[in-house]
Amino acid sequence: MKNSEIEIVFQPYGSRSKYPSGTIIMVAAKTLGVDISSLCAGNGTCGKCKIRIQRGTEGISSPTEKELKHLSQKELKAGFRLACQTKLRSSATIFVPERSRVGKQRLQTEGLNVPVKPSPLVTKHYLEITPPTLHNVRSDEDGLLDTLRIKHGLDNLRVDYETAKTLPIKLRKAEWNVTAVVSEKRIIDIEHGDTSERCFGFAVDIGSTKLAGFLMNLNTGHVVAVAARMNPQISLGEDVLSRISHVMMHGLNALRELHEAVVSSINEMIAECCEKANVGTGEIYELNFVGNTAMQMLFLEIWPQYTALSPYPPVLRRGIDVEAAQLGLTSHPRANAHYVPVIGGFVGSDSVADLMAIDMLNSEEIVMDIDIGTNTEIAVGNKDSILIVSCASGPAFEGMEIKHGMRAATGAIERISVDPDSLETHYRTIEDAPPVGICGSGLVEAPAELLKAGIINMTGRFNKEMAKKTDRVRTTPEGWLEYVIASKEESATDSDITITQADIRELQKAKAAIRAGAEVLLRRMKLTKDDITTLYVAGAFGNYIDAESARTIGLYPELPLDHIKFVGNTAGTGSRMCLISKQMREYAERISENVRYYELAVDPDFQSEYIKASFLPHQDMSRQPFVTELLKRHGRVP
Amino acid sequence: MKNSEIEIVFQPYGSRSKYPSGTIIMVAAKTLGVDISSLCAGNGTCGKCKIRIQRGTEGISSPTEKELKHLSQKELKAGFRLACQTKLRSSATIFVPERSRVGKQRLQTEGLNVPVKPSPLVTKHYLEITPPTLHNVRSDEDGLLDTLRIKHGLDNLRVDYETAKTLPIKLRKAEWNVTAVVSEKRIIDIEHGDTSERCFGFAVDIGSTKLAGFLMNLNTGHVVAVAARMNPQISLGEDVLSRISHVMMHGLNALRELHEAVVSSINEMIAECCEKANVGTGEIYELNFVGNTAMQMLFLEIWPQYTALSPYPPVLRRGIDVEAAQLGLTSHPRANAHYVPVIGGFVGSDSVADLMAIDMLNSEEIVMDIDIGTNTEIAVGNKDSILIVSCASGPAFEGMEIKHGMRAATGAIERISVDPDSLETHYRTIEDAPPVGICGSGLVEAPAELLKAGIINMTGRFNKEMAKKTDRVRTTPEGWLEYVIASKEESATDSDITITQADIRELQKAKAAIRAGAEVLLRRMKLTKDDITTLYVAGAFGNYIDAESARTIGLYPELPLDHIKFVGNTAGTGSRMCLISKQMREYAERISENVRYYELAVDPDFQSEYIKASFLPHQDMSRQPFVTELLKRHGRVP
Repeated sequence: MKNSEIEIVFQPYGSRSKYPSGTIIMVAAKTLGVDISSLCAGNGTCGKCKIRIQRGTEGISSPTEKELKHLSQKELKAGFRLACQTKLRSSATIFVPERSRVGKQRLQTEGLNVPVKPSPLVTKHYLEITPPTLHNVRSDEDGLLDTLRIKHGLDNLRVDYETAKTLPIKLRKAEWNVTAVVSEKRIIDIEHGDTSERCFGFAVDIGSTKLAGFLMNLNTGHVVAVAARMNPQISLGEDVLSRISHVMMHGLNALRELHEAVVSSINEMIAECCEKANVGTGEIYELNFVGNTAMQMLFLEIWPQYTALSPYPPVLRRGIDVEAAQLGLTSHPRANAHYVPVIGGFVGSDSVADLMAIDMLNSEEIVMDIDIGTNTEIAVGNKDSILIVSCASGPAFEGMEIKHGMRAATGAIERISVDPDSLETHYRTIEDAPPVGICGSGLVEAPAELLKAGIINMTGRFNKEMAKKTDRVRTTPEGWLEYVIASKEESATDSDITITQADIRELQKAKAAIRAGAEVLLRRMKLTKDDITTLYVAGAFGNYIDAESARTIGLYPELPLDHIKFVGNTAGTGSRMCLISKQMREYAERISENVRYYELAVDPDFQSEYIKASFLPHQDMSRQPFVTELLKRHGRVP
Repeated sequence: MKNSEIEIVFQPYGSRSKYPSGTIIMVAAKTLGVDISSLCAGNGTCGKCKIRIQRGTEGISSPTEKELKHLSQKELKAGFRLACQTKLRSSATIFVPERSRVGKQRLQTEGLNVPVKPSPLVTKHYLEITPPTLHNVRSDEDGLLDTLRIKHGLDNLRVDYETAKTLPIKLRKAEWNVTAVVSEKRIIDIEHGDTSERCFGFAVDIGSTKLAGFLMNLNTGHVVAVAARMNPQISLGEDVLSRISHVMMHGLNALRELHEAVVSSINEMIAECCEKANVGTGEIYELNFVGNTAMQMLFLEIWPQYTALSPYPPVLRRGIDVEAAQLGLTSHPRANAHYVPVIGGFVGSDSVADLMAIDMLNSEEIVMDIDIGTNTEIAVGNKDSILIVSCASGPAFEGMEIKHGMRAATGAIERISVDPDSLETHYRTIEDAPPVGICGSGLVEAPAELLKAGIINMTGRFNKEMAKKTDRVRTTPEGWLEYVIASKEESATDSDITITQADIRELQKAKAAIRAGAEVLLRRMKLTKDDITTLYVAGAFGNYIDAESARTIGLYPELPLDHIKFVGNTAGTGSRMCLISKQMREYAERISENVRYYELAVDPDFQSEYIKASFLPHQDMSRQPFVTELLKRHGRVP
């Protein structure tokens, strides 16, 4: 190594190379393909390229003025710097935090991957059966069951009726060498020869807005293909209450219509995954579903009216098994479909799945779990006691009801920064395509940036004066103020992409519902935010939102960023866990029995908490010390 | 009582009255409406009016010459006399044995009535559920299950999916006062108000030729209506092998056709019974089926080919539960249909039911059970060991393949006697209607009477010489001899009703198959007929055949008549027992596991035994001491 050369290692990637002394971290990262988030092309104005110096702090440049704006003293002490501003004069190891990493194309199906030992309900067993002879006549059934008992230790099985109908033909065509497909205690099929390697299942997370499907190998417990769809029920009502109203007004046919709509999309996902992985739909022997209580009822065609009326009782709480064919699902004709138990009100099996994925029922420490979606569920507690609520947060963070909102797809603006001085903007889109709209993570970041830049104030109102300073702040034909993120020249839509006063209001309502739910819940549990060891943020777009921006707008109780874990679609995680493991299904029943549902609608404090939480970040700034400091650094006086 | 008056009591009726001394028993019986079987109008030539003097033997007339012809010394010693010949000079009690009683219209569904404590799979429970409140929100499911657990002690139940779909509506329409229909561990329906009294099931015996159906109250275990039908599969093959051949030749569609045919007739029986008893078909929650293995496969649409080929393995041995709706049965939409386990080869659940009805698996004594039908099953043994065979006896005794054969319906000749001197005949028809044909009991009695009268000999051949003595013996246009039982002037068919040489041959084949089966079976069990404590004769027409006539033609091993019990349709009895009792279903599984099936087709002695048994009564008269004596009394030298 030359005297003037240093070595820089990037973690968690493990990439390393040698550079001249004085190299800027961002420049080094680019040569290695380590893709650090950056919106301002290295100008130090977006503050998105935060990294942490793990080793080698001695040869580091002093913080620039721009860095001092974006980094708190605590962050600086902990080694955080902006990659675009920091030069290294000695070898160093740089950690790129997840929120500064650039994601790939968003399926928004990813969630925590919790390793679970497969113990699936469906197993396959290759059998070489001794045929009956005149000296040892036994029924085809006994031949099958005896072999399964003696060779595979499986007792008390029974032959499914449909299997029985053609059993004698199948046994003889295969010359008695067959694979038995065993689902719990039932033999649901007999296959020619040895097919024991081919045993698949399909796990689904039915979100109010999005569906995620996972084709899994039941033998290994591995995912072999993934698909996602919008929930087509949206056309009949954006939130669960409007869908239930639709059913109440139009009766059983409407219920059937909603049921068939979601089944049809699930079948599309099954077909897509099967094609990707070269699996036959008839090789799917088991399906597992999670979703909130409304999704459960609309998927299973259960009359949902009374769950929408006080005292909001679910119809079914426990898990239920239904023949997949009866529901119209494309899979093996005797496949079973399991719907994981729910908790109460609209808090469904997606929440059970969330809590399973983070193993909350076994947690010694107090944790909070927020699963952000059209309905947002918040749980708090530990192994001794867990309380959960559901907030009607609406689909704003999913891009609905937002002028230029969109789902996380190519061209969606996912990161935004506003330069507090020039009031110019930098953004990044998915796949770096020309912008089409703004997706969830952008919709969290936009109000945070506008707030820091003083374009909106804590009540969410645009500052008219700013229109004088920049063309980006302007008045719409309807008389609202809006901020232009991308001009029509840049965009792929031939129109400006803006965020309007109305959008900010929608986002305030959504975040207020979530924050108020969390605050009320803490109070009911006689806890404060400081009792929370870990705040898990789940939900389809959770992986992509910026923890600090979300904290800046007051989406959740203010905690140190390292206490916050984005776990993604843990509903999907839990659905997969339940698909491959009987033990996890039992665990789900225990969660359903032990987690108490709390009805926010009857809480005396909810309304006032909601109003306070509709401020950005909160009316009560004593709950927001970090944001107070941040806004002060930006010259805002909260 | 005047000096010259006597009192005569008839048992088991308990009818009694006073008569002048010297009254003939038959005359006394008629005045009381006690209907003693008689074909010869009191001439003492038919010998059908055997009664037993229980009390008052001192004032009895001496046996007439005619009585001495019809009664053995042993019978005389035991108090048996002919009612038309015997005068009483002192008070007496007369027992009318079952075989001398006159039956009513034959449904041929009657069988042994074995009292069983009801413990049905389906039970109903009236519930008053506490509705959920905001302070005690629980799911509709939990409300239902909690009430069933706490108030009725029923645990581990689950709500059936179809029940769940409308559960919230039903609970609220009924103001939470509902009846839960519980089938095993499933809640298959929720009914408005208290319907717990209305809980029905349907038990079926699927015979190759006849179907019997019993509508039962599951709460009480009582039969509330009965129906019978011919098995419509007959049009596609009279015996099971021809039906299976039909399926093998025409494939799965033919199998479906046979399945649908029998289901449609069962549905007719269900409709008939429900109408008779004013029960809705939707109030039938459970169905139970018995039948031989071929009937099992054709009813359940299981491919039957290989059970008809060596080594004759059944497809299913164990009991199986199928949704009644899936089979196309008219009943509650979630009713379960249970098919009782089979034993082996074509020995099916009808035999399991037979052995259950006579409790053979618990018998200390050696017993034999013969269930006569198109297939005749014979079991012998006791609690230590039971062996069972199936004989292809054919449908001759059910009136098939017999020129004037018919089922037991109005106008069927059911009793026949031939006067050995005049060679004239006496007969009795069902409901005393003008004769239409000859039913099973007549077809057993006819060859016995012709044999005693010397019209046919032990090889079954007509004695040509008899044509010279009586016009009743004559030659058919085809050159066969036949005997005229009723002339066309008497008959309702405008043609003579005869029994032909060909008929005798068919009946010989049928009885030879049964007898040979019984003989081979005894040999395999290392038993002789003298080891048999009780011979049970089951089968639809069993109740009506004359034990002595059957013994005379050698239908079964020769035993004293009081060792022979006619138990009727015990397949129906067992089906009813299994319908109303879980314990009986378990008992059926034990019978299926413990009774060994023996394949007659591979027995080295069967062929020679069959040939010997085709004689009337048997080629080896050392096995027939009673018949030897009887024929001697009639002047026949065997």
